[in-house]
Amino acid sequence: MARQSTTSTTTAKAVVLLSGGLDSYTTAAIARFDGFECYALTVSYGQRHACEIAAAGRVAQSLKVAEHKISELDLRCFGGSALTGDLSVPKAQSACDSPAGGIPPTYVPARNTILLSLGLAWAEVVGAFDIFIGVNAVDYSGYPDCRADFITAFERLANVATKAAIEGQDCFKIHAPLLFMTKCEIIRAGKQLGLDYSLTHSCYDPDEQGRACGRCDSCLFRLKGFAEANMEDPIKYVPQ
Amino acid sequence: MARQSTTSTTTAKAVVLLSGGLDSYTTAAIARFDGFECYALTVSYGQRHACEIAAAGRVAQSLKVAEHKISELDLRCFGGSALTGDLSVPKAQSACDSPAGGIPPTYVPARNTILLSLGLAWAEVVGAFDIFIGVNAVDYSGYPDCRADFITAFERLANVATKAAIEGQDCFKIHAPLLFMTKCEIIRAGKQLGLDYSLTHSCYDPDEQGRACGRCDSCLFRLKGFAEANMEDPIKYVPQ
Repeated sequence: MARQSTTSTTTAKAVVLLSGGLDSYTTAAIARFDGFECYALTVSYGQRHACEIAAAGRVAQSLKVAEHKISELDLRCFGGSALTGDLSVPKAQSACDSPAGGIPPTYVPARNTILLSLGLAWAEVVGAFDIFIGVNAVDYSGYPDCRADFITAFERLANVATKAAIEGQDCFKIHAPLLFMTKCEIIRAGKQLGLDYSLTHSCYDPDEQGRACGRCDSCLFRLKGFAEANMEDPIKYVPQ
Repeated sequence: MARQSTTSTTTAKAVVLLSGGLDSYTTAAIARFDGFECYALTVSYGQRHACEIAAAGRVAQSLKVAEHKISELDLRCFGGSALTGDLSVPKAQSACDSPAGGIPPTYVPARNTILLSLGLAWAEVVGAFDIFIGVNAVDYSGYPDCRADFITAFERLANVATKAAIEGQDCFKIHAPLLFMTKCEIIRAGKQLGLDYSLTHSCYDPDEQGRACGRCDSCLFRLKGFAEANMEDPIKYVPQ
């Protein structure tokens, strides 16, 4: 639930990292349900699946966020990831194939650290002490910056790194409401909140029309989640 | 000293955050003296004192770094700082005037968290586990992200946030060799290392010719340091 505001008439603000995928959409809806006024931050970091940015715009509009900001930061200049172009996106037969091989090349070095840092900067400026991120450590690719340890360490950092925390205005809280949910549970929660998942984009390697490949990790986890929830995924997939 | 490399013929790499100021120049020189091959990272974040970027180029060239990367990230989109344009740079009569008034408006929300995050991303890609930052908690403006607590918290974060650390390749170390030095001690150390401080730029509010104002916090600390070291600052100042 949103923290009590200092004045009874003001809604507490939260910065929500919004990629345009299923998880961040659900996270933003949870933040709104919890009573926060949402400031949605999307980072255009040179991801191969740039239609994610358009999805973020649709989702932000649908959730009626207070403000949607798109920050430009080209992580392609560092390289080292399949999502920023210099490695290929692996395609597996099922979502269970991936984790066995360790952290896959779709890992973007320090990505969530960078995203949360930018979220923290904006939070300080708008006067928010709550930051939401849609990381998940159940149906995921094993990325280190999607785990509870990471969230805890970032929250500690935020509370020594910033003027707002040091001056004792309040403490930062990093919310990761999906952390321990399965993809199926996430989708069911979203449905209860009335979400329209046709607005989202998850695929790491869509075709020119923006259709999901159905074979990357992100697609496989998404499809598995919809199957387990006995629901049909409303987005378009490339015919297999 | 640089850590032992896994192969005796390879020099250990370090990412060094290089702003183009006196402190980051000295820090990079210390990293080099300690035996590291330096990868210098400059972030063009929309700072008002953009001639800092040119200074970073001069400094990087003079130190013969292995690579100098300039990353573009416009923090003006968040605002909230005199250095990114929407507040004015305070001018004091002496460096001692500033800290009494709390953290000044030249504080850039979450800046060093963002800079270290970007440094961490590049470090993972080049295979460096050492990151140098020229923060100082003695002759400084009271910024929270220049203190030992911040460095410790970021180091902890780096070691849970990244594939390189999680896979047990090595541990990240954040080096802040100037942390407890006075500006005078920093300048003396730099002189011993043969540094040419005429290459640097420190002023937050230079004139059109790039001359330092002599009255912002950054100038005042710099001038105080040179005075205490009984040396003349080789850069140009606007006549007072």
